[in-house]
Amino acid sequence: MTTPALYDTQNSPFERMLRELPLQPLSVFFSDKASLEMAPVQFSEVLFHGDPLSADIQATFPVLSHQHRGILGSRKGTPVTGKNIAVFFSGGPAAGGHNVIVGLKDILGDHNRLYGVKAGPKGLLAGDLFEITDVSGIRNTGGFDFLGSDRTKITTSEQFEKVRHWVSHYKLDGIVVVGGDDSNTNAAFLAEKLSDLKCTVVGVPKTIDGDLQVWPWVPISFGFDTATRIYAELVGNILKDTPSSRKYWHFIKLMGRSASHIALEVALQTQPTMTLISEEIAARAHSLDIIVTDMAKGVLRRAMLGHAYGVVLVPEGVIEFIPDVAGLMGELNEIMGDSEAQALVVGARHAYVVGHLSADGKQAFLSLPEVIQTKLLMDRDSHGNLQVSQIPSELLFVESIAAKVHVIQTNPRAFFSDLSEKDLAALAKFLFTPLTHFFGYEGRCGAPSRFDAAYTYNLGLAAGSAVVQGLTGHMVGITDMATGGRAVALPLTGLIHAERRHGKTSYVIKKALVTLDSPAFQSFAAHRDAWALGDCFSSPGPRQYTGPLSQLMPLSVALNQGYASSVYHLGV
Amino acid sequence: MTTPALYDTQNSPFERMLRELPLQPLSVFFSDKASLEMAPVQFSEVLFHGDPLSADIQATFPVLSHQHRGILGSRKGTPVTGKNIAVFFSGGPAAGGHNVIVGLKDILGDHNRLYGVKAGPKGLLAGDLFEITDVSGIRNTGGFDFLGSDRTKITTSEQFEKVRHWVSHYKLDGIVVVGGDDSNTNAAFLAEKLSDLKCTVVGVPKTIDGDLQVWPWVPISFGFDTATRIYAELVGNILKDTPSSRKYWHFIKLMGRSASHIALEVALQTQPTMTLISEEIAARAHSLDIIVTDMAKGVLRRAMLGHAYGVVLVPEGVIEFIPDVAGLMGELNEIMGDSEAQALVVGARHAYVVGHLSADGKQAFLSLPEVIQTKLLMDRDSHGNLQVSQIPSELLFVESIAAKVHVIQTNPRAFFSDLSEKDLAALAKFLFTPLTHFFGYEGRCGAPSRFDAAYTYNLGLAAGSAVVQGLTGHMVGITDMATGGRAVALPLTGLIHAERRHGKTSYVIKKALVTLDSPAFQSFAAHRDAWALGDCFSSPGPRQYTGPLSQLMPLSVALNQGYASSVYHLGV
Repeated sequence: MTTPALYDTQNSPFERMLRELPLQPLSVFFSDKASLEMAPVQFSEVLFHGDPLSADIQATFPVLSHQHRGILGSRKGTPVTGKNIAVFFSGGPAAGGHNVIVGLKDILGDHNRLYGVKAGPKGLLAGDLFEITDVSGIRNTGGFDFLGSDRTKITTSEQFEKVRHWVSHYKLDGIVVVGGDDSNTNAAFLAEKLSDLKCTVVGVPKTIDGDLQVWPWVPISFGFDTATRIYAELVGNILKDTPSSRKYWHFIKLMGRSASHIALEVALQTQPTMTLISEEIAARAHSLDIIVTDMAKGVLRRAMLGHAYGVVLVPEGVIEFIPDVAGLMGELNEIMGDSEAQALVVGARHAYVVGHLSADGKQAFLSLPEVIQTKLLMDRDSHGNLQVSQIPSELLFVESIAAKVHVIQTNPRAFFSDLSEKDLAALAKFLFTPLTHFFGYEGRCGAPSRFDAAYTYNLGLAAGSAVVQGLTGHMVGITDMATGGRAVALPLTGLIHAERRHGKTSYVIKKALVTLDSPAFQSFAAHRDAWALGDCFSSPGPRQYTGPLSQLMPLSVALNQGYASSVYHLGV
Repeated sequence: MTTPALYDTQNSPFERMLRELPLQPLSVFFSDKASLEMAPVQFSEVLFHGDPLSADIQATFPVLSHQHRGILGSRKGTPVTGKNIAVFFSGGPAAGGHNVIVGLKDILGDHNRLYGVKAGPKGLLAGDLFEITDVSGIRNTGGFDFLGSDRTKITTSEQFEKVRHWVSHYKLDGIVVVGGDDSNTNAAFLAEKLSDLKCTVVGVPKTIDGDLQVWPWVPISFGFDTATRIYAELVGNILKDTPSSRKYWHFIKLMGRSASHIALEVALQTQPTMTLISEEIAARAHSLDIIVTDMAKGVLRRAMLGHAYGVVLVPEGVIEFIPDVAGLMGELNEIMGDSEAQALVVGARHAYVVGHLSADGKQAFLSLPEVIQTKLLMDRDSHGNLQVSQIPSELLFVESIAAKVHVIQTNPRAFFSDLSEKDLAALAKFLFTPLTHFFGYEGRCGAPSRFDAAYTYNLGLAAGSAVVQGLTGHMVGITDMATGGRAVALPLTGLIHAERRHGKTSYVIKKALVTLDSPAFQSFAAHRDAWALGDCFSSPGPRQYTGPLSQLMPLSVALNQGYASSVYHLGV
């Protein structure tokens, strides 16, 4: 049986619709509004409101640090021709990457050549480039599949020599690096090493984690909006499920590595019962037991109100922010990094580890649920470290809270004052029924939200402008997102600081974590007590591509930037 | 800090938009098209194209089986007044339940009384009813939270007496049961037991699993479309992720209990690398080893093409359909049902079980990955059975395929003929990196798709019509979904058959499983070889609420009903 008309290969009706949506370029990219001809903007210097570069940064980037160091606004540029520009993706996919390429292609036009580098930095080392001629098929689509990506770091002189070889081979005038904090750090070093070849390097801020932000110039990295909208729909659906089936506590781990931006944004959009923010946990220096006791009491307070259900958001990296657990993990990494320990079969590691831990470490280790103890004894990466993503932190909380709920139920008056007979009866009959989820990969390659589609297209236009202008070692951004948008380029050396990693100093872009005095966190903190007891759940629904609901930016961006609403306004 | 305008409690901008969408009632529900006044339809008898009722069904339903037994079409009815009707949800939530209530309220109008029963059948036993006066807040919204739901079965004479008490107390003329196959079975028994009280009982076909279908009259149960669209977006996103990051094999378990309708629909929408269909596995009677070998070879065939990635859809209940695993589980349930086995601590069960299994059972058990063996020894439910949802079938396949991939890599020529040197090199360097997912709860309480919203509103209008007309023991449906829609009511006794459950005969509605000669399965079977090797991934995107993409029905429904396209057309 054949089934024409119902579906076809690689072109769902949805993808066809996406490609036809308008791209919302900023007006500054039109050389002439009437003709709709595009031309690169010229970035012009503006006073930089940052600290002067330290001596070690100047020593690390001898060429870049002598460049103009302004926050750069934009004004009309003139068309440029004959340039060869390459672009590659680096690291995990994020929605909108394809539109960066569409923007580059549109701004470079037919009189410059755009190369795509296949499979990320690895492809650049291998000289695996092809000329990009037609971008109509990838317009507004999700994924990084047009080029592919990888996580190779270009750091050795041998690697830089390879890149220099291909830059000369392809006569490249510029390279656009689409990546997160590490990839943009890499872009700075690449810019430094290629400066004598007159090949510029420009970075584009990508990461669903949202931990690459430079207020107010780069309010957020691209991909964050789409990922959080996808997760927020699912969390909203599960929140709706709880008062429908009235029996489950859902523990939802959200991707985002160290930073809790994703958890915070999803919480603002959905108003769940509880949300852990790693940065707050670190700041308060509460032990796991204090956190778990608080959460178990929260669970039981709801039980007394007749709500035997709830939803808890857990940021992926939370474990590293709980002081006693972090301390334990540090000790474990040292003990397990030992070759003697590595040689042990997994079954023999428990006794070995308990014998080598400090008194505090031993207590912390043995107080953990068994399933977590086992996970902590697993094989390590090449640095002897355990990947945080391998630790099921959602399970850590489920198991610990289940145990604590039982303790409290056994002796409730030790934990709550003023319990009525009705409260006691409710506590006694409450059954804690937890379920766990992990939302991560499903948020990286969704079709970009209209916000991410417009943002990335303009980032592509800005990156193309910067690279042909001869700017190097800069990262582009779009600011003023509620009022038409403004293209900027930031010197990467201004974002890089010294950090101790594995016992030596590295120069890296500082990760933007959630700050507790930020408007987004403050807003969350002001509302969460109400969310904990009432059923204030909000359902943000699936991303819409037409109508007013399609023109929204992340709530945390709107709050942190001080915009009056979360409606974005980019372009003409 | 206060943040007005950005969000408010329980009313996201999305939910406000939803409530204003049109409801798409069929024209038959308008007493007069010009005035937009609604009136119940009159169901009129049409010849029933089924088998005559068997003697045992007639004996089980002495009253119902003497009723008219027609498939019932519809014509205009006259307004009815003064009736008291109650409605309750039964079982797991499904998108659109609220619109059933909106439809009931609209068709009953102001001259009849509609009661909501809180928290499902349990609330009916407790007489926990309230009068529904305003449904504007729940219009087009997801979840069952307006009433709540539960899974209590009303089967004992004591329970029926309680219901009879409340029927008299509230002077109920009719009860509408919104539920799946078991709940509609229950509705038939309730109709039988309440017939002397002149209280009618009408069922509404709900279940995301899609296993309540009566072609062509009830093409699908409500909630299936929304759930599969939610899962299909996520699967589409993950499919897009694979050629972007180029290193993962994702194994995605999809909710759906026994039937594979959900997996089949999601496969048709997304075109993944591999999809297991439980009903096909059972029909072919292949062993786990044959299935796993096939899948491992599929994984390695892609590795030879340079595709070290893919996506596998695994229906929730698949394990029960693999003959040797099902046989093993039957044996295990008998062995573990023994009180001696139940008394053992979990650690001691392995040796006990191995000692009591048949030779075949022992071989099957010991060939399973350790993590699965452990799961199979867990505590049982009150019938001594293991809940199939507790078995991580996605892990069973991941672990088994990983082992088999290793076996094939060690000696590839034993499994593939005509391997080139390039193939051998690709096989040798391939690293199988699996990730697992389970999509379930996030699909039950999403906002209903436009299809489910229109379908359920019309089901509510039809159920309200049937119940005031005095029809009892019927389930309503909407057919002709591509051509305006037609309301029908089916006698439940015609759907009920005898089934052996736990050693005794039960009378239940037969679950509609995927049939291998259905157009939907045939279409899948015709395409899957191409999907297995090429990257034919299709991204259906998130549900849209406006525009042409909002007017789609499930592909499997369109195929099975023989419609020319998957565009639905319901209402005026």
